[in-house]
This record gives sequence, structure tokens and C-alpha cells, in this order.
Amino acid sequence: MLTLSSRGKLMPPSPIRKLVPYAEGAKKKGIKVYHLNIGQPDIETPEPILNAVRHADFKVLEYSHSAGNESYRRKLVQYYKKTGIEVDHTQIIVTTGGSEAILFGFMSCLDAGDEVIIPEPFYANYNGFAVAAGIKVVPVTSHIENGFALPPISAFSALVTPKTKAILICNPNNPTGYLYSREEMETLKQIVQEHNLYLFSDEAYREFCYGGEHISAMHLKGVDDNVILMDTISKRYSACGGRIGALVTRNREVLDSVMKFAQARLSPPSFAQILGEAAVDLPDNYFDATKTEYQKRRDVLVKRLNAMEGVSCPNPGGAFYAMARLPIDDADVFCQWLLESFSFNGQTLMLAPASGFYGTPGLGKDEVRLAYVLNVHDLNKAMDCLEQALKEYPGKK
Amino acid sequence: MLTLSSRGKLMPPSPIRKLVPYAEGAKKKGIKVYHLNIGQPDIETPEPILNAVRHADFKVLEYSHSAGNESYRRKLVQYYKKTGIEVDHTQIIVTTGGSEAILFGFMSCLDAGDEVIIPEPFYANYNGFAVAAGIKVVPVTSHIENGFALPPISAFSALVTPKTKAILICNPNNPTGYLYSREEMETLKQIVQEHNLYLFSDEAYREFCYGGEHISAMHLKGVDDNVILMDTISKRYSACGGRIGALVTRNREVLDSVMKFAQARLSPPSFAQILGEAAVDLPDNYFDATKTEYQKRRDVLVKRLNAMEGVSCPNPGGAFYAMARLPIDDADVFCQWLLESFSFNGQTLMLAPASGFYGTPGLGKDEVRLAYVLNVHDLNKAMDCLEQALKEYPGKK
Repeated sequence: MLTLSSRGKLMPPSPIRKLVPYAEGAKKKGIKVYHLNIGQPDIETPEPILNAVRHADFKVLEYSHSAGNESYRRKLVQYYKKTGIEVDHTQIIVTTGGSEAILFGFMSCLDAGDEVIIPEPFYANYNGFAVAAGIKVVPVTSHIENGFALPPISAFSALVTPKTKAILICNPNNPTGYLYSREEMETLKQIVQEHNLYLFSDEAYREFCYGGEHISAMHLKGVDDNVILMDTISKRYSACGGRIGALVTRNREVLDSVMKFAQARLSPPSFAQILGEAAVDLPDNYFDATKTEYQKRRDVLVKRLNAMEGVSCPNPGGAFYAMARLPIDDADVFCQWLLESFSFNGQTLMLAPASGFYGTPGLGKDEVRLAYVLNVHDLNKAMDCLEQALKEYPGKK
Repeated sequence: MLTLSSRGKLMPPSPIRKLVPYAEGAKKKGIKVYHLNIGQPDIETPEPILNAVRHADFKVLEYSHSAGNESYRRKLVQYYKKTGIEVDHTQIIVTTGGSEAILFGFMSCLDAGDEVIIPEPFYANYNGFAVAAGIKVVPVTSHIENGFALPPISAFSALVTPKTKAILICNPNNPTGYLYSREEMETLKQIVQEHNLYLFSDEAYREFCYGGEHISAMHLKGVDDNVILMDTISKRYSACGGRIGALVTRNREVLDSVMKFAQARLSPPSFAQILGEAAVDLPDNYFDATKTEYQKRRDVLVKRLNAMEGVSCPNPGGAFYAMARLPIDDADVFCQWLLESFSFNGQTLMLAPASGFYGTPGLGKDEVRLAYVLNVHDLNKAMDCLEQALKEYPGKK
């Protein structure tokens, strides 16, 4: 018998995937489904950067440098400078999406059996990359009651073992939208210094902060060798399909190692490097309109949620996600029910059950993640559906 | 002390990389370097498929389906049909280059410590993906004396252990250009059936066969569950920078597993999927001109090489590589010397030492790989340089 690998079996399916057939079923019945389940922004990709690709003048679609085009990396230096991050182009390795930056970071710094501590709830695909790299994710729980703030030092310290090699944060956070404060970032610095750990920092949503200041892990002093930034242009410029990200670090050994993984896969995609390079020249106020739009949506969403009986939703400081606690028995069952058995004026909504974002079994059972990637009108319609659904749902608590 | 992972340390650097500074040095001295060291075709990417990207009409550069756009996969079904491969679109997972197809295949079918048998010399980056996946490459040696033909069954059988899970071939081969015959493919089928192994088949150069017929592993009968095709559009349409490939198999379990790895990294690049989809509509004679050109180059190259004293080069049946044995002490030293200490009429050439393509230490010491990705005029100039170099080289045998 041919057998799959154990890791192939262990590899977690997307937590939302099992709901997709139910969403398709609802649509077949003629029901309109509002998708609050995925992080695909509806914001238009800026025309000038699409034009950069359309008008690119070359005859052969060649491999780029394995670390990405030098012209793009030099341009990224300017971008990072604007965000207060001082690096040179040799400290940037362009990756195929933020996904590859995470995988390369795991592969280069951790061996099979090594451990990475991640505040939960966390981006579900970290689990997938951990299985691919054979490493163990150790969750440290953040709580909805205090808005998913960074757990205290003692919670981290209690989890450190001789196998612990890294802490991974996502800031602002997917799925909670939590934005870490300067004090929290300094706390993380203390922990990684004390235990001599890598600090992986996924900053995909850096530009999407509403009110608070974004403190990058790369801003921290004295931890140049510890900090590894995992970045992507996907959300920043509504360019998810481009598959362009970057791994950025001042740790030369890590760069040399990551470079070998980068060489094995030859190069990151060429077209979207052109797009990414052009994006650095977008006017500085490009993000203003986008941020204003997202903030408006967040305000509507959070207000609507908290106005529903038994629902609580902390106000997220960034990204375009919110986590809400619902008065229900089981979010997995509820989200399926929304698609399979419910509609309101011919409409329903798709949400992501929070269980998939927790590493600790049993947590998040009455929580859902909502991505506010719909305009305010549609968001309100979706909230009308949710409000009604919570009245009708048989498993209401 | 922060430490790198063992796999980060084990990860092999590109075998050509160490020569790059010497090539740059030569260029700084004003010497023209003919690059026969890399598989970057000089053939122009077909204008209609570049135009498909230029004129693509969308407002948001969205994630595609994790398995690739359905429209593209359905189009690929037509492409494969033309090559005698009957599959449906659910048996195709679009990957980020052939590279990712190899990695996903390794990850899904083999666990750390499992073994894959690969005829050597082989594409050096297989080593990198094996280190990333923690698996062991077991080389079975093919020999320049018989043109790098498939080693006999007995050579494979002698290497099979309880850990052996797969055989990987590249057909036509990089770096040897060897095209497996129907009999050899049937032999491989026998071996994988007898020992119950996966047959990974890298067919990146399928279209580049000069004379002989290409027998795909997917053509073999009765091994539907064993065969996993790793494919790419990189060389086929001179679209290396697009980073679009595919994993194709009729094994449903493998597809389900690969799909989970595909979901973790979200989607393959969108732009080049548009290009790949348009490529299937290129006229059937598109490859004729390209093949004629490569065949002309091959003929010139092989003739020139074999005319040099002490040089032997089997006539490759496909791809755009040739392996030659040179009358030298050490190809690594020779290739460096070509760049560092030699020039002829202000020109020199860059070659890939064969040692990097062998898994068995010490093999290929007097062999080099030549990629005929230059026009005939430049190829002849490069061969003039090589001929002269072999007269001057101090380590001549």
C-alpha cells in the first residue's frame, strides 16, 4: 500500500474549508451570502501599480534574483525608512507572499521538535507551516475579556522549555485586530532577551492601525539578531494575488540560511515585484482613504455587534478583523447553520468559527472572526442577518 | 546564543553560486562572459501571452483558488490531452513553479528520514527540497559512457530499503539532457510496482525532445496511484519568472494532502496564471520554431565539444543541457579558473561544474554541464574560448 506521509495527514485543512460546500449550497438556493469569513479586501488595487505591470517592457519573463530584484529591494529600503525601520537592501529577501517568509523563517531557525510560542487566537495557517517544518506551536492564551491584550510575562515564561526557539506575533493581529502597545512590545523584547529567542513578527497589517501607533519589532533596540520581520504587500495594496512578501532581518546568519532556501526555489514571482516596486511610489496619503474606509467599517461592525443581546466584541485597534463572543453553544455548528438552515430576506452571512484560531482544544467555542471587507451598506445587511439569526438559532445560550 | 536550525546549516547553497563573484570579477575587468551555466532561456516569451497579462481586466488582484483558477485548470486539461495525458481539472493543483510541486510532493508522500531514489547526476535543487522536507536522497548512478541511460533494475533494487518511498526522475533530464525511452519508462513502472513506490516525474522539458518521443510517466498504465507529475511552464513558454507550475496525479489521497499544503500558502501567483491560461491557446506549431532552434544549438555544441581533444559529450535527446567530460583535474577549479585567470580575445565562459549534480561524493569531478541557451553565434564563440582554455589550463590531464 502506498501511504501518505504523517505530516500530510497531520496537515490541518483550512478551518473555513469545511463550510464552503454549505455556502455553495446556500447560493444554489438563491440566497445571497455576505462573506465576512475571509481576509480578501474589496478595496481596488491602485491603478498606477497595475499599470506598472501592464506597461512593463521586457521580452523574456526571466527568473529574478533569488532574493528578489535588487531595484525592488532598494525601493523597499525607502518604504521601510518611512515606517521608521532602518535596513539596507541586503537585509531584505523578497518572498512568495508573507506565507513563504513564515515558512523560510521556521525552516531556517527551528528544527523538527523545536517550539514556537504564539499568542492565541492566531492566524490558522501558522499551524500549517509548523507541520510542514515539523515544529511545535505552543499557544499562550490571550483573552477576549481584556480585548486580547498580550498575555503577561509570567504566562510566556511558564511555557519556555529547552526546545523553545522563538516567539511569533502578528501585529496588528489577525484574527483579533489587536494592536500591541509600546509597553507590550518592550515586554516581548525582555522575554526574547531573557530566554534568548527569535522574535518573528508578522506585520502584514502594519498600515491598518486606527488611532494607536504601530510599533514594529524592527523598532526595538538591542535585539537586532533576534527579530525577524515577516511581511507582505497583499493587504497593504490589495494585492493578495501577487504573492509578494519579504523576510527582513539584521541577523546575517539567518539571511544566509534563508537565502539558500530562496535559491532552491529559484525566484519570487516577477510580475508582482514590478507592482510592489511601483507601490512604494504611491503618494504618502494613499493609505489615508483606505484607513478611513476600514475604520468606518470597524466602527459600524463593533457598534452593531455590541448592540446585540449577549454579544461582546472588543474594539480592534488594527487590521480588518474583529473577534466576537456570541450567545451560542458552538460556533462551528452555528456558522454551518447560518449557511444551511437560515436566511433573512433571502440573505445570510458566512463567518469563521474561532476554534480554528486557537491552539488549545476547546477554546473559542462561542467566538467567531469577522473580516470587515465589505462596504458599510453590506456590513449593515450582514449584521441584520446576524441579529435575526441569533434570535432563531436553536443552540442559543 | 541564538542558533540556526540544523536544516538551515545543512541546506546546500546553489552549486553555481560560489562562482558568481568570479563572473562579476571578470566582467569588471571588461571580459565578456558567455553564460552556459544557467537554465534561463533566451527565447522570447510569446507576445500573445504577455498581452493576456497586459490586457487582463480586473479591479482587485485577488487570491486565486488555492489549487489555481478553475478556468486555468480546465485549460490545462486540454493541454495535457494534447500530450496524451488524460486528467480532469480536479487532478491538477497549480503550484508556484515546478519547485513548489516538488516540495509539496515530498511533503505529502515522505516523512523525515524516508528515502527517495534519484538517478544521478540530477537537478541540484532536489537536494534543497529534500533538506527542507527532512528526507534522504539516495542516488543511483547513471554513466556518461552510455549517455546517462537509466541504470539497470538491479541497481535500483539494490538501493531499496524499508524507508524507500519514491523514485524521482527528470525526463528529459536536467542536467544530462537524457530522454528516457519507452522501455526505460516501462522498467521504472516495474520497479515502482514491485516495491510499491511513488514515481515522481519532473517533466519541465517535455516539449524539448529532438527526435525521440516523450513518454510521460502519466502515460504508464496501471500505476495511477503511484505517478505524480511535477510540471512547470517556465521553460515551455520561456516564462521562468512567472512561477507557475503544477502537480498532477490521479491519486486522490495525495491530491487531498497536497491541497492542504496549497491552502496554507493561500494561492499561486495570479498574473502568471493568466499567462499560463493564454499559453494553452498558442498555435500547435509554437514549439516547432523553438525546438528547431534548440536542436540547431545542440548540434553545434555537441559537435564542437567532441571535436576537442580529450572531450566527450553524449548527444542529449532533450532539454537544453549537455554534460561533457573534459580532460581536466577538477571541474570546480577549472570553472573558477575560466573566470578568474583566463580570457581569449577578451572573452570567457561560465560553466556549471558537475559535482553539484551528483549525490555521490567524488563523482563528476571532470564533468561540466552546459546549458545551450545562447544563439549559435555566441555558442561558437564560447566554444572557441573553451577550446583555447583547455590548451592553457594548468590542471590539464
